Amino acid sequence: MPTSTIRESEVDVLIIGAGPAGLMCANGLASAGVNVRIIDQRPGKVAAGQADGIQPRTMESYGLLDKFLKQANQLHLAAFYNPGPNGGIERTSRSPDVSVPTARFPFEATLHQGHIERLFLDSMEGHGLRVDRPTVPTSIEVSGEESALKNPHAYPVKVVVTHLDASPGHETEVIHAKFVVGADGAHSWVRKSLGIAMEGEQSDYVWGVVDITPDTDFPDIRNKTAIHSENGSCMIIPREGDVVRLYIQLDNKDVIDPSTGRLKKDGFGPERLLEVAKKSFYPYRISTQSPVDWWTLYQIGQRVASKFSVADRVFIAGDACHTHSPKAGQGMNASMNDTHNLGWKIVQVLRGWADISLLKTYEFERRKYAQDLIAFDKKFSKLFSEKPQSEQRATGVSHAEFHTAFQTFSGFSSGIRVHYEPSAIVDNARQELARNLTIGERVLPQQFVRAADARPYELQDLLPADVRFKILVFTGHDLGPARTLAERLEPALSELTPRDKSVQDVFDILSIVQGKKEEVEYTQVPPMLRSHWSKVLLDDTDLTGKIGGNGYETYGITSSGAIVVVRPDGYVGFVSALDEVERLSLYFKGFMKAL
Amino acid sequence: MPTSTIRESEVDVLIIGAGPAGLMCANGLASAGVNVRIIDQRPGKVAAGQADGIQPRTMESYGLLDKFLKQANQLHLAAFYNPGPNGGIERTSRSPDVSVPTARFPFEATLHQGHIERLFLDSMEGHGLRVDRPTVPTSIEVSGEESALKNPHAYPVKVVVTHLDASPGHETEVIHAKFVVGADGAHSWVRKSLGIAMEGEQSDYVWGVVDITPDTDFPDIRNKTAIHSENGSCMIIPREGDVVRLYIQLDNKDVIDPSTGRLKKDGFGPERLLEVAKKSFYPYRISTQSPVDWWTLYQIGQRVASKFSVADRVFIAGDACHTHSPKAGQGMNASMNDTHNLGWKIVQVLRGWADISLLKTYEFERRKYAQDLIAFDKKFSKLFSEKPQSEQRATGVSHAEFHTAFQTFSGFSSGIRVHYEPSAIVDNARQELARNLTIGERVLPQQFVRAADARPYELQDLLPADVRFKILVFTGHDLGPARTLAERLEPALSELTPRDKSVQDVFDILSIVQGKKEEVEYTQVPPMLRSHWSKVLLDDTDLTGKIGGNGYETYGITSSGAIVVVRPDGYVGFVSALDEVERLSLYFKGFMKAL
Repeated sequence: MPTSTIRESEVDVLIIGAGPAGLMCANGLASAGVNVRIIDQRPGKVAAGQADGIQPRTMESYGLLDKFLKQANQLHLAAFYNPGPNGGIERTSRSPDVSVPTARFPFEATLHQGHIERLFLDSMEGHGLRVDRPTVPTSIEVSGEESALKNPHAYPVKVVVTHLDASPGHETEVIHAKFVVGADGAHSWVRKSLGIAMEGEQSDYVWGVVDITPDTDFPDIRNKTAIHSENGSCMIIPREGDVVRLYIQLDNKDVIDPSTGRLKKDGFGPERLLEVAKKSFYPYRISTQSPVDWWTLYQIGQRVASKFSVADRVFIAGDACHTHSPKAGQGMNASMNDTHNLGWKIVQVLRGWADISLLKTYEFERRKYAQDLIAFDKKFSKLFSEKPQSEQRATGVSHAEFHTAFQTFSGFSSGIRVHYEPSAIVDNARQELARNLTIGERVLPQQFVRAADARPYELQDLLPADVRFKILVFTGHDLGPARTLAERLEPALSELTPRDKSVQDVFDILSIVQGKKEEVEYTQVPPMLRSHWSKVLLDDTDLTGKIGGNGYETYGITSSGAIVVVRPDGYVGFVSALDEVERLSLYFKGFMKAL
Repeated sequence: MPTSTIRESEVDVLIIGAGPAGLMCANGLASAGVNVRIIDQRPGKVAAGQADGIQPRTMESYGLLDKFLKQANQLHLAAFYNPGPNGGIERTSRSPDVSVPTARFPFEATLHQGHIERLFLDSMEGHGLRVDRPTVPTSIEVSGEESALKNPHAYPVKVVVTHLDASPGHETEVIHAKFVVGADGAHSWVRKSLGIAMEGEQSDYVWGVVDITPDTDFPDIRNKTAIHSENGSCMIIPREGDVVRLYIQLDNKDVIDPSTGRLKKDGFGPERLLEVAKKSFYPYRISTQSPVDWWTLYQIGQRVASKFSVADRVFIAGDACHTHSPKAGQGMNASMNDTHNLGWKIVQVLRGWADISLLKTYEFERRKYAQDLIAFDKKFSKLFSEKPQSEQRATGVSHAEFHTAFQTFSGFSSGIRVHYEPSAIVDNARQELARNLTIGERVLPQQFVRAADARPYELQDLLPADVRFKILVFTGHDLGPARTLAERLEPALSELTPRDKSVQDVFDILSIVQGKKEEVEYTQVPPMLRSHWSKVLLDDTDLTGKIGGNGYETYGITSSGAIVVVRPDGYVGFVSALDEVERLSLYFKGFMKAL
């Protein structure tokens, strides 16, 4: 008879769920050297389908950009079709898919979720972390002791898990964690176990989704196309290779079981979905020779969790806290951005740099975002699901209305306009010193040239999510004020730096000088403001004259200069004048510990 | 007692030497599916030092660009220092390192040769090819039989090799090859075995090279800097990470043994080299705390092999056929470009598409280039090695003279101005139809947008070195002439296509239409000119209006359109009007077989 043993273990962070939100979190923590584990109940990774749109803002972050862009399809143009005079559809217009002027990547990208997860899994493996699977959590308990909850070194969360493929008698493990992240999807076990409610409702709209390699004469098959026809609505999202995803509006009576009010999939299939789509494509033809890659039906639900954390020790993220329609391409982006927001905060607390209260800003920032997302989704889904205006139907949705909504929402749907309200980490008191760099929003993309070698760099690429706050010193042209600042900055930052670390371990300082690449010598900038030759930038064009220049103007900074603090996740947190070191010091002391 | 056995084997192509020229060749052939072997006498790859400059033109080719650019350092700015009034040096000017307006990458890049070789080795392994090492060739013999030499399926070259780490008695192998490429360096065994002479001479200039991580207050340490001082000349080439390479002029009497006239390295070392460099840096200081990465001494030799091939069956490439000074950063680029030129020609012959006479163009094109390179190198080395002009020395090299040479040579040293003269594969009769697309030079970089999805693409990236000739059909605005062309092109190309292949296997056809992305439907282009939805481009900007546009104008093509043929290595080979299919047909029949 096998003996039964129950393992007990400790971990700093336990992540439950290895979808995009969980993997983003795990990869971020592992690359910061955190003691982290990630479990998932599925035996392997996602095979096909599921979410696959990546917003321009998501591309700006995260450091896996190159690999991602190499594989992904890009959506530049949106096309709009409406009922024409001859019974079929005709193109009303083509316009940019992303109409946000500050987008660094002015397009959306699509890539199979499995590929995206693979990028994270590979990166994680480089840090020695793999997903523990198939493993199912069975109970979670948060200690009620105030003292344990306040001590960042305590392990106040107890999670019992079952390893499904362990040998009999060895399946159970009790994990004591400092922090737990529940990224376990729309039906989140973590959320339900903690009794967190979802607020909102199911809509009446039912859609089918099918991935095909089309054979078609439709000229906009590789654009993001919205078709409003007399025979239903359809949206085309081209994907990598020759694959195209179709979102197809369905008639509720065909797919909703009237007795239960629930979706009934039986009797439906990809062939029938395609039959519906064909009607809305008329007079164009569409069919497929290859087998269908993937299909599903879904009923749009629009809900947000009532809270995102318990005792600042257990957090839920991704689909576990917000569900919405997939057509706006928000789900995976919002999910990854949740844990991108959370990860660095946990690390700062674990390292003893920041106070545990920093973690309150996660719910504050991300729940507000989720609510905005749902509001947006409701409007957009409604416009897209209702009948188009026509001669017979004056009350329908007009093209102008739909198109305006599409463009207005571009700022939101691109992820560019995420805005965090003032908090311990967002101090907008001195906004006027950097007028166009909105405090609480991501740093605007801008090319600068490196003073030492005149090589152009996108500033965003120099601000990696490496847990450190970035202090950008816009020195202006005259280096006098920067020299004074350097002297005062040293003691102010040393106060916040653990004894066994250097200031540069905790803060990344870059200087941005107004001056010409032919003239400035980087060696003139005070050493405190350039820990390495690569840390001095110039607001100048590169040698072709085509890249960079006018950075101060773009950011709305005058030649008096400014200090701009960028959070580890790329959002602007603070602005002050060069002689306001006390103010800077107070900002950091609002959430960091004087050590 | 071990029995002694001599293996005999056959291979389509045997490459001797796994430096940059050999690896470029091996990777190109392996990715084309050729039966190829590559041997090298060294047991492992290069550890440090050696060549490491990459020209802008080299970056434009080859498909390994992304990985390369990720790791490499970039040189944008050049700085020039000359004797100042106070006994030390001072900066005379800064100017662009690359001053060729058509360069797509307006900088040079530097990367350790070992990294570059690693990129090729990894890519090769993906095609199942590894370097056979340590393996030494001991004899080479080319058959004298005319019939064998003319038959591309014969194996007229016999090479005997010794596998140094094989078990005793099994070291020897006799390899019968259709073709052999000798890429075995400046002291090429292949060249000597075939009795090919090197023409040219040794110069009197002796230089030392040292790689260090410097500690310095010199403000141009990260730029490509030429120092002419009263205490000798020095050139700075910054490399990846914090490493910098110094080329240091030496006094012949210190390093040449008067009895032999040869370099004597003993008594010299990196410390002494650095002592010499320090004098030319004065009044700036330079030292290093870390151990020196690598160093060497060299005497400039400027020679070109009298011929580059024997019987169109054995070819020499790279340093085996041209040696010159390293300062102009030409060596590795010229070597890789040699086999980039040769590889596709061998594949076309092996596949039976082209006549074996195509191989004559290798020597014709690359020997002329090597001669130009040496002539350039002589001028540049002399200017750089001689004393600078000063009040005491009116006859010295003036800064203006050096700077002008530096800029004039930029077109050459960047690799952009490589020009192949008319031959079977370069037909410049209709140059006027694409005035700015010089026939015999590489395709100018230009961004177009893809008609199906408005995604911008650099045309060069759509012309991979995949052995196929690229037929670019500039249709103009009106698609009428393109429709007529499509009908006539089909039979013309079918004639040159083996029966078991489609036209698209042998030729890659792209259409470039004048028109707006909001209006053009790619489905209007005749199917013969778009084998896939990705094959139609528009001469228009992308949706930001910042990328692309004016491509016809940039290339000097009118709205009457043109056919432009690009060779598999990216060079323009032929231009004609849309109604000159006979001319096109004759061009291809000049070196391809009617099948």
